[in-house]
Amino acid sequence: MANIREIAKRAGIGIATVSRYFNDSGYVSEESREKIRKAVEELDYTPNALARAIFKKNTKIIGLMIPNITNPFFNQMVSEMEKLFRKQNYTIILCNTDDDKEKEQFHIETLRSYRVAGIVAMRTMTPESYRNIDIPVIAFENQISPEHITVASDNYKGGMAAFKHLYDGGCRKILHIQGPEVFIATTERLRGFIEASKKKKDALVDVVKLETDFHIKSLEPAIENIKNITDYDGIFVFNDISAAVVMKHLHDLGVRIPEQTQIIGFDNSFLGELLLPSLTTIDQPIKQLGKITTDLMIRLINGEEIDQKEYYLKTTVIKRSSTLGKIATSKE
Amino acid sequence: MANIREIAKRAGIGIATVSRYFNDSGYVSEESREKIRKAVEELDYTPNALARAIFKKNTKIIGLMIPNITNPFFNQMVSEMEKLFRKQNYTIILCNTDDDKEKEQFHIETLRSYRVAGIVAMRTMTPESYRNIDIPVIAFENQISPEHITVASDNYKGGMAAFKHLYDGGCRKILHIQGPEVFIATTERLRGFIEASKKKKDALVDVVKLETDFHIKSLEPAIENIKNITDYDGIFVFNDISAAVVMKHLHDLGVRIPEQTQIIGFDNSFLGELLLPSLTTIDQPIKQLGKITTDLMIRLINGEEIDQKEYYLKTTVIKRSSTLGKIATSKE
Repeated sequence: MANIREIAKRAGIGIATVSRYFNDSGYVSEESREKIRKAVEELDYTPNALARAIFKKNTKIIGLMIPNITNPFFNQMVSEMEKLFRKQNYTIILCNTDDDKEKEQFHIETLRSYRVAGIVAMRTMTPESYRNIDIPVIAFENQISPEHITVASDNYKGGMAAFKHLYDGGCRKILHIQGPEVFIATTERLRGFIEASKKKKDALVDVVKLETDFHIKSLEPAIENIKNITDYDGIFVFNDISAAVVMKHLHDLGVRIPEQTQIIGFDNSFLGELLLPSLTTIDQPIKQLGKITTDLMIRLINGEEIDQKEYYLKTTVIKRSSTLGKIATSKE
Repeated sequence: MANIREIAKRAGIGIATVSRYFNDSGYVSEESREKIRKAVEELDYTPNALARAIFKKNTKIIGLMIPNITNPFFNQMVSEMEKLFRKQNYTIILCNTDDDKEKEQFHIETLRSYRVAGIVAMRTMTPESYRNIDIPVIAFENQISPEHITVASDNYKGGMAAFKHLYDGGCRKILHIQGPEVFIATTERLRGFIEASKKKKDALVDVVKLETDFHIKSLEPAIENIKNITDYDGIFVFNDISAAVVMKHLHDLGVRIPEQTQIIGFDNSFLGELLLPSLTTIDQPIKQLGKITTDLMIRLINGEEIDQKEYYLKTTVIKRSSTLGKIATSKE
């Protein structure tokens, strides 16, 4: 790889001028600029992004904190954001937190030490760690503080829509299988579900809480342990993978879906289409979530003040074969 | 964060000298070097990985090229490698190539400009782009050159094992649904399948090629277009997601699995366990693949010469309900 000395030699101008050019630190004539550009091209010189970052006080790197890269919802979000950030010439550093506070704190220090331009903190387990750092941060799902921007699906209305869809399909004894309480998204889904159920006096509702979100090996025993699961005519499961495990368990118990029990999931993962019967679910608008997060981050990096701090995007019921109700949207 | 001007002021020396120091572009006395190092340290509140990287000419960043982050096989590989690299204090820059040559070349330039310590090129579409760069590179699946290390599952023997498992389960008219030809992994699976079938004169085999690997929306019409798919008593599909789409299609056509048609996939994705019937598949040893790739990379970064260039890891048949054969391993 060529260095600055070779570029200066090839361009036929002084090292100091080339240095000013790369550092953007003083006058360089247009004629010299042209010569440098030509030399850079001829020598196949890759500008040193690190050195530039030090001079200009910022890198073109965005740090993405992801709870788990193998979780389809989050990896689809990352895939969206990666494409959009790339269009703005930003590169992604991806940090797997495993919903572990210490791992997340380690990653925050790493990202700070690399002087990233911004951080998207997805489902943070340690909001306090982001409060005093001088880098733009956007929270996805779990909030950081009222001063920080939060982006999420409207999980509350999604929970309401799930209840209504089952109720409209004729269910009157409905179970909600809730995800881990530390995830705001799952407690909001529960809250919406309960709120919607209060308006229907003829419906009985129960709630069971799981402590794992999508590791199949932990989900299976937890779901097999749910008492009287065959008593319900409708089950709203907090995510699609857990819903798939519930369907498998009911199938093993000889329960027919949707005739005896109707099932609705959450996320609209690719998985739902492949199941038998295919899974009705609540769609989170991944493309829009990715777009709004990316746009807001670029604006923050550019120093813009943004007054609106909370962005909750609309979810939609995706009707498939695991329920009997008609299509409804969370708007209804 | 401090800039070059503040560093010069604090160090009590000229900007040009500091610039020469950072650019490695001319004489800087040891005394000045020491002053600059001290100033950089004093002005930073977090250890500056970028500055350190420039001093030491290397970063603690590994670039991972991934064909698609939403593909379960590859995101599980990345998750494994991320954990192992983190133990060695390396951070990951993740680059989604979408199997697109131009995107991949863009990422290579970005990684070079950030002076990453090493690159893992998963399923590269542009091996020639890695040949002349002065950074350690390991190829995963698609080879870069005979001089570069390649890590992969033994897809050839995996293809043989898939044929044998169907044959041993009684199948005599067997279809292989092959993945895109540009992926070495899928052509190796085909080669193994054909080779194993040659030894069994009473078995008829056919091959159909798909041009997409796991985007369900493209897989569905492609699979629906396969002629006479109900004529086969055994189908070996090149990956689990495509196998799931095949199963769904056969189910819609009223074909009973495994009684009428047995199905075997490849990858051992979490998906297989959730299907009805659960999917027999060929396991790729993701943990070992991740471990060996990480270990080799650390050794290359440390300047070690490694004589063995090819690492093909053993696959295993995971017997579930979509086939009738007994458990076999690729060793047999």
